[in-house]
Amino acid sequence: MPNPFRLLATDPTGARRGTLTLPRGVVETPTFMPVGTSAAVKGVTADQVAATGAGIILGNTYHLALAPGADKIAKLGGLHRFMGWSGPILTDSGGFQVFSLPKTRVDERGVTFEFEKGGQPMELSPERSMEIQAQLGSDIAMVFDECLEYPCPERRAAESIERTFRWERRSKEAHARLVLEKRISGATGQQLLYGIVQGSTFPALRQRSAQQIASLDFDGYAIGGVSVGEGLELLKKIVGWTAPFLPADRARYLMGVGLPEDLFASVERGIDQFDCVIPTRYARGGTLFTARGKIRIEHRKYRRDAYPIDTSCDCYPCKTVPRAYLHHLFETREPLGETLATIHNLRFYQRLLAGMRSAIEQARFAAYRDEFLGNYLRASEESPGAD
Amino acid sequence: MPNPFRLLATDPTGARRGTLTLPRGVVETPTFMPVGTSAAVKGVTADQVAATGAGIILGNTYHLALAPGADKIAKLGGLHRFMGWSGPILTDSGGFQVFSLPKTRVDERGVTFEFEKGGQPMELSPERSMEIQAQLGSDIAMVFDECLEYPCPERRAAESIERTFRWERRSKEAHARLVLEKRISGATGQQLLYGIVQGSTFPALRQRSAQQIASLDFDGYAIGGVSVGEGLELLKKIVGWTAPFLPADRARYLMGVGLPEDLFASVERGIDQFDCVIPTRYARGGTLFTARGKIRIEHRKYRRDAYPIDTSCDCYPCKTVPRAYLHHLFETREPLGETLATIHNLRFYQRLLAGMRSAIEQARFAAYRDEFLGNYLRASEESPGAD
Repeated sequence: MPNPFRLLATDPTGARRGTLTLPRGVVETPTFMPVGTSAAVKGVTADQVAATGAGIILGNTYHLALAPGADKIAKLGGLHRFMGWSGPILTDSGGFQVFSLPKTRVDERGVTFEFEKGGQPMELSPERSMEIQAQLGSDIAMVFDECLEYPCPERRAAESIERTFRWERRSKEAHARLVLEKRISGATGQQLLYGIVQGSTFPALRQRSAQQIASLDFDGYAIGGVSVGEGLELLKKIVGWTAPFLPADRARYLMGVGLPEDLFASVERGIDQFDCVIPTRYARGGTLFTARGKIRIEHRKYRRDAYPIDTSCDCYPCKTVPRAYLHHLFETREPLGETLATIHNLRFYQRLLAGMRSAIEQARFAAYRDEFLGNYLRASEESPGAD
Repeated sequence: MPNPFRLLATDPTGARRGTLTLPRGVVETPTFMPVGTSAAVKGVTADQVAATGAGIILGNTYHLALAPGADKIAKLGGLHRFMGWSGPILTDSGGFQVFSLPKTRVDERGVTFEFEKGGQPMELSPERSMEIQAQLGSDIAMVFDECLEYPCPERRAAESIERTFRWERRSKEAHARLVLEKRISGATGQQLLYGIVQGSTFPALRQRSAQQIASLDFDGYAIGGVSVGEGLELLKKIVGWTAPFLPADRARYLMGVGLPEDLFASVERGIDQFDCVIPTRYARGGTLFTARGKIRIEHRKYRRDAYPIDTSCDCYPCKTVPRAYLHHLFETREPLGETLATIHNLRFYQRLLAGMRSAIEQARFAAYRDEFLGNYLRASEESPGAD
């Protein structure tokens, strides 16, 4: 498959502006992918997600294999038809769950999780993960890797990247067979495959893993093993150690990141793709993003507030209801509160990324970053309602 | 205020086709009003409600007075602006809560409820209910009445309709003062007032109450004291005893009703307006309305079902996702399941009412009823998944 990434411009900071041509559409990069773990971005319809400007969303191999089962989704025509989302979808491989969920076995073959499906323990391996993702029919599949915990001893990380390398080679071979056998679900029958770099917090291991994975020639490259509790300073370092060893002509995806400040730091280090539960999870907890920092909508100071969530925002709730209404919905536990908050936060992220793209085109990413973070972080600290 | 109701056609059955010209728009009747108790139709945005075809929605005096408080809503410009709904709104008076909620006092002045607001017991009276509804700025306010329990001794019902008559006269006087003093919230500053007939299950009391209330000359008339457990056969009788004594040139609203079969029976007895929590509450519980009866989407027979909820429906979920997806969302407790189910059920009701209006225009209401209920009720009984 030809390289789906096209680099349009590079800012003096190193930030990249590009496009990603996927089976179901062209995505403008840098891009943020809302997370739809179980075939739904929690609390919002596919139409509402699209209306926030999201061009691509994420689904999860592990969760979808547990419920409803990838075979069922395949028989229904694939994940896009199942969930009524016609744009591109990226599926995570389950590798992150090797880090985050209880396991009964991790060995060279793969992983067995504690959770059961139909009375059988749930198992994942490179081959099984590729099979599930083929059944789902996502536009971008991710290789199955071993996502390491943080902190992690260097010896363990060194051994793990070798296993990850072997698992990714097996992933690539399994994926090639599935494509050849026309077993990718969905109307397009096409699916890209991204590699994932591991290596924990060790520069030499990150470099080695990046070079190993790059040698396998994937459609794009992800930096994994982040967003596991390492914090922004270490995240910046990891990206800085890794990105230079990834092919410059391919898309780079930083997995599970992050807050607005994390995105700025990463985009200027050459990252093109992000996914994160933060905008949706924070929304459900009543934390809303605004140009002047995060606000906690349940705070009593909003109970008579006639202003929209963010006066600079053009999302549906900001155009139609006051903060006092959101406050009321959260106070009375009306489920609509979480929905409106989610729409707003997703739109905030899409506007943030659109601003980045525009700034890169104009070679003024640093100025945009300083202006945005100046308002955003200062206000977050000053505001008594911020968290 | 001029009579807002215009009668366009009457079917041989007695079913009426009309329009209701309200401060914020014209409503086609017979009409069904989705219930937005606490300034939200549970789980759906105002835009989604509008997209189902709903022309008017209902809000609740009692609940809104408790949270966030009618004074707050008034200061924010009224209920329409607060919740981002620009179409007509009818507010219930709190009279139904006299029946449904625990009280510490019911006397000639009014009612004191057990629930407290700001440390004070919540009180309602004709004057207070009118004041709250003026603050909310609804298009149609309802008089404050005493909604009786079922069954109810005749002597108690006889005494109660006299109190209801006195309360409604006080409601009308209080409302007239509020209009005169320009205390109706919102851009239009206008508000209609409907009377409510009580009388429990006694024909002579229903007739007497209807004549008493009609003598007060309201903008429209509601039949109250139904949907309290009396069942369809008794409901039909109550409507049959009451409607003939209401002014034929005014709109008639049957409060809190009901299932599709209830609506058919009531429309042919001359009812023009309905509200009910059934479509929204059933949706949240996983019961979906279809032309072939109700289905329980959590039933395992839907887990691989590639058909839309209802093949004859044009709602957003029916156009975009299979039953298996709804089944999955309910199984995994994704909140989106309740949202999509609510959109579908609300659209089902709006299509049902649109079908009734069209049938009345063509003087074939009985044929439409028999055809609809023939498919709907027969299938409901036969289908193992129906409830």
